[in-house]
Amino acid sequence: MRDPIFYFMAEIRLKDIPTRAPKDWDKLQTKDKTEAIKTELQEMQNLLFAESKHSILIVIQGMDGSGKDGVIRNVFGCMNPQGVTVKSYKAPTAEELSHDFLWRIHHYAPAKGMIQVFNRSHYEDILVTRVHKWCDDQTAKQRMEAINDFEKLLQKHNRTHILKFYLHVSPEEQRSRLLERIKDPAKMWKYNENDLEEAKLWDVYMSVYEDCFNNCQEPPWTIVPSDQNWYKEFIIADALCNLLKDLDMQFPGLKK
Amino acid sequence: MRDPIFYFMAEIRLKDIPTRAPKDWDKLQTKDKTEAIKTELQEMQNLLFAESKHSILIVIQGMDGSGKDGVIRNVFGCMNPQGVTVKSYKAPTAEELSHDFLWRIHHYAPAKGMIQVFNRSHYEDILVTRVHKWCDDQTAKQRMEAINDFEKLLQKHNRTHILKFYLHVSPEEQRSRLLERIKDPAKMWKYNENDLEEAKLWDVYMSVYEDCFNNCQEPPWTIVPSDQNWYKEFIIADALCNLLKDLDMQFPGLKK
Repeated sequence: MRDPIFYFMAEIRLKDIPTRAPKDWDKLQTKDKTEAIKTELQEMQNLLFAESKHSILIVIQGMDGSGKDGVIRNVFGCMNPQGVTVKSYKAPTAEELSHDFLWRIHHYAPAKGMIQVFNRSHYEDILVTRVHKWCDDQTAKQRMEAINDFEKLLQKHNRTHILKFYLHVSPEEQRSRLLERIKDPAKMWKYNENDLEEAKLWDVYMSVYEDCFNNCQEPPWTIVPSDQNWYKEFIIADALCNLLKDLDMQFPGLKK
Repeated sequence: MRDPIFYFMAEIRLKDIPTRAPKDWDKLQTKDKTEAIKTELQEMQNLLFAESKHSILIVIQGMDGSGKDGVIRNVFGCMNPQGVTVKSYKAPTAEELSHDFLWRIHHYAPAKGMIQVFNRSHYEDILVTRVHKWCDDQTAKQRMEAINDFEKLLQKHNRTHILKFYLHVSPEEQRSRLLERIKDPAKMWKYNENDLEEAKLWDVYMSVYEDCFNNCQEPPWTIVPSDQNWYKEFIIADALCNLLKDLDMQFPGLKK
């Protein structure tokens, strides 16, 4: 199977990046490949945990309905829960608001040996907040600097390897998924009456996302075509597997 | 009473800074003044808490026997404990070591309205660790950068005002205080058999402290002549009081 295409741009423009797999990409073959990668991931994660030298932070961002919950279930659900934790960030509490915006984030930074998944993240503080003008451009700029400093801290001072994924869906796909939530009794709990109102702000969201990708790119973001779940899961599992392989980990010997 | 003398140097050299009050400084008058400041501090702290716009971080560093515990008891003991918390940092635990060195610090950053006192702090990671070569110069440099970024975050993103005090004692005064711990049954619990060994590393400690003052000076450090407790307590209470006055705080009106 050939390698997926990534889009390296001096400046990320979301409308120039497809939300679907390349046309002739084989779905069944990809699904098999993803299963094989997941088996490999289990082994690599065991090694990561045993060695306890490195830590992994997976940041997952995306619009409502882009499939964040699904990718967490399907890609990370296969791993030993002792070594993987997921933190979902909601609107900050009063206690959290009485601190700097990274306070609630830092506490959940991964310990050595661990994989930490963020379902939404510190990036919300320069996304939804900007769209609704709760945060002005100058504050957003200062926050981006603080985010870059913070990610540098994790990378330099705790061997934290950060993978940042944006689940890229088309507005049409999003709309169809949100409407499904209204119709499907198993999905109704996910529906928020505000979702369709938020969807109208699509273009503003895209522009603040682009600003965030272009200003917080160390490490860079991976834009994941996400209209098809099978392709999205493949891309993310594959990226994590490649990262873990590159760490050149070893099982530690007997303690002396 | 005249203002205390501070030493503004392009580069801090500890041996050029006295460890005692100026010769003709009046002890009794100073003690009265400190008591008056402490009364004022209680009022200011109440206002800080009520307004909940600003937060205060007090970092206290100093050699063994420099009087860190005493200054915390005597200056901050007068305040409403609901608005003041003290965190003493000891050698990091295994859990703390599995994170970046600022992880355990960030969690205790002050919430708005609060005064947080650090008895020792993140600076230990570039002090005792350097003296014992557990941390090489390059790592120390990277940690200083991370500390500067971190303090910038607190200052810019949570209106945290940081006061950093170094309790400056002479080696003679330190020795006499450590020996007192061996003799005085009420102070024996503080004695650590390692203390006198550590004291032999005096010059190395001074040089790593100077490096830290000169590289992490936003906000700058206050070097507090600390051979006399009455003078030390005055300087610290006075500095905090001046800071609080400058904040121009107001009691909030009725909630609408």
